[in-house]
Amino acid sequence: MTKSEQAPSGEDSLIARYFKPLATDPGAFNLGDDAAILNASGEDTVVTTDAIVEGVHFLADDPPDTVARKALRVNLSDLAAKGATPAGFVLTLALRAADDAWLTLFARGLGSDAGLFGCPLLGGDTVSTPGPLTISITAFGRVPAGGMVRRSGAKPGDRVVVTGTIGDAALGLDILKGGAAAALADAGAKAMLIGRYRVPQPRNALAKAVRDHAHAAIDVSDGLAGDLAKLCGASGVSAVIDAPSIPLSAATAALLARGTVGIETIVSGGDDYEILCAIPEDSFEAFVQAAGQAGVAVTSIGMVVAGSSVPRFLDGEGAELALPRLSYSHF
Amino acid sequence: MTKSEQAPSGEDSLIARYFKPLATDPGAFNLGDDAAILNASGEDTVVTTDAIVEGVHFLADDPPDTVARKALRVNLSDLAAKGATPAGFVLTLALRAADDAWLTLFARGLGSDAGLFGCPLLGGDTVSTPGPLTISITAFGRVPAGGMVRRSGAKPGDRVVVTGTIGDAALGLDILKGGAAAALADAGAKAMLIGRYRVPQPRNALAKAVRDHAHAAIDVSDGLAGDLAKLCGASGVSAVIDAPSIPLSAATAALLARGTVGIETIVSGGDDYEILCAIPEDSFEAFVQAAGQAGVAVTSIGMVVAGSSVPRFLDGEGAELALPRLSYSHF
Repeated sequence: MTKSEQAPSGEDSLIARYFKPLATDPGAFNLGDDAAILNASGEDTVVTTDAIVEGVHFLADDPPDTVARKALRVNLSDLAAKGATPAGFVLTLALRAADDAWLTLFARGLGSDAGLFGCPLLGGDTVSTPGPLTISITAFGRVPAGGMVRRSGAKPGDRVVVTGTIGDAALGLDILKGGAAAALADAGAKAMLIGRYRVPQPRNALAKAVRDHAHAAIDVSDGLAGDLAKLCGASGVSAVIDAPSIPLSAATAALLARGTVGIETIVSGGDDYEILCAIPEDSFEAFVQAAGQAGVAVTSIGMVVAGSSVPRFLDGEGAELALPRLSYSHF
Repeated sequence: MTKSEQAPSGEDSLIARYFKPLATDPGAFNLGDDAAILNASGEDTVVTTDAIVEGVHFLADDPPDTVARKALRVNLSDLAAKGATPAGFVLTLALRAADDAWLTLFARGLGSDAGLFGCPLLGGDTVSTPGPLTISITAFGRVPAGGMVRRSGAKPGDRVVVTGTIGDAALGLDILKGGAAAALADAGAKAMLIGRYRVPQPRNALAKAVRDHAHAAIDVSDGLAGDLAKLCGASGVSAVIDAPSIPLSAATAALLARGTVGIETIVSGGDDYEILCAIPEDSFEAFVQAAGQAGVAVTSIGMVVAGSSVPRFLDGEGAELALPRLSYSHF
């Protein structure tokens, strides 16, 4: 992003108007240079990148401020799962046109979350596209040198722990698309599920506890079952999950109880943006305490076991659930 | 980017097949985690991001390997202008479909340049889009703490210096679009101009000399006139450029001499990816020597002067050129 006092182009004006106010970090140089700086800090820099595409990751009529917040929060969620403290982000915005009303709301949502999570805009690129609005964010976090929590590292005997509730976002999307969950009568519950789809709640408050206690962690973005399989694969272990222990919101539990949706939708639906981690038994109590202090609900849903098979999800009678697909895939 | 030994999705297979071989840095974790690491180094990390969109920044029938190389090189050019040594990059690829033939060539071009410039793939995200192919890269470089070369810092009396030759890429694009430059008879010259559009030559070999000697620098990506205006604006100065001194390739000089293109096309056309910098007079000789050792041609094209007006471009008689537009703008 660039500025020019002497010859502002449309692109430069757009950046100065909407995004310069968000570039509060000295390393962003007010978006007035070719690059930004992450200062030498003695810590490792954790780098993550996630893009969201109109019609794929969000809907064309989603409110612009929630689109901005989702774009940033999906990246913040990765930082949280890695035990990192947010340090800033860069933004690539591919737009069909410079729509002032849309950009005003988008920048407002983005700035609000940048402040809330202490993750300032450092730089970016704004380009035109004839295609769908596409937002790509690369976010940076800090961990003590060598301290990033990996996917690998889970050991047999570790507890499998997940934050928050699972499945809400997938049902929120189902409601927006007029699927089965749209039959839900309670307007407040519907709004909650849609909110979970549009504005994830990344668990950055838990980052230090994850760093202090977890053997391994992953951001649940593509579906609990698939992301657990990835964590297990990276760690060379398997897991057994007690499906009735999976934490559900009241709305999701009600839809499951009346058979409107199946458990597969809940464990393989995407967009949860919760942390899934492996906590050694002797750290579990301390982890739960730290999570309580951070204000983040955590639930033990199963155990890491030896083996290389796909993690098994057992129902209340101990029978294995058949999961036709583990997670969302783009291709 | 993720991998899974247990449940590879189409997306995971694509990443494992095409991009894992490029993730040679230990901080990339073989693309098998949610995030990558830039190690604590005692140096500042320079961050730059640039996206390219099919039909906007490259043409649908451009060879896939040149598309990859352009996507990386436009970012490498920013690092060079800031005096930074490349450290790695993350890639967001928005694809309509997973086309094996295209991806094979794309990954080959990307890997080749990652090796050539010492800039390994650290991570990324691959998403589906119904729209044009869009490639967003965020690249990282290192400079000694506080050592990034800024746009600001140019002082009256500094020489305005540019690397390589200017205008070739804009004429290459003109040829590809069947414009006036397509009338060029010399096939070799045409191929050279097209090559300059498709595969920029970022001047990373000059990064240390820029750091050692330049008061200010910018990557020439949107047009020499506009980017000079940005550098001057950020520095609070103006400049006077001797247009006949602007370095031109033989092909561009021939097209200019016969009136096929005007000087405005050359100084306001984009995609040069040269370095424009302000070098104090007493460092100029040392800078030229360092550039010679780095194998990069540099040319003094004018002087920084006091003032806040748009930089003036003078012709051989000292008359000011009228430039209807300074540079490319997306909006």
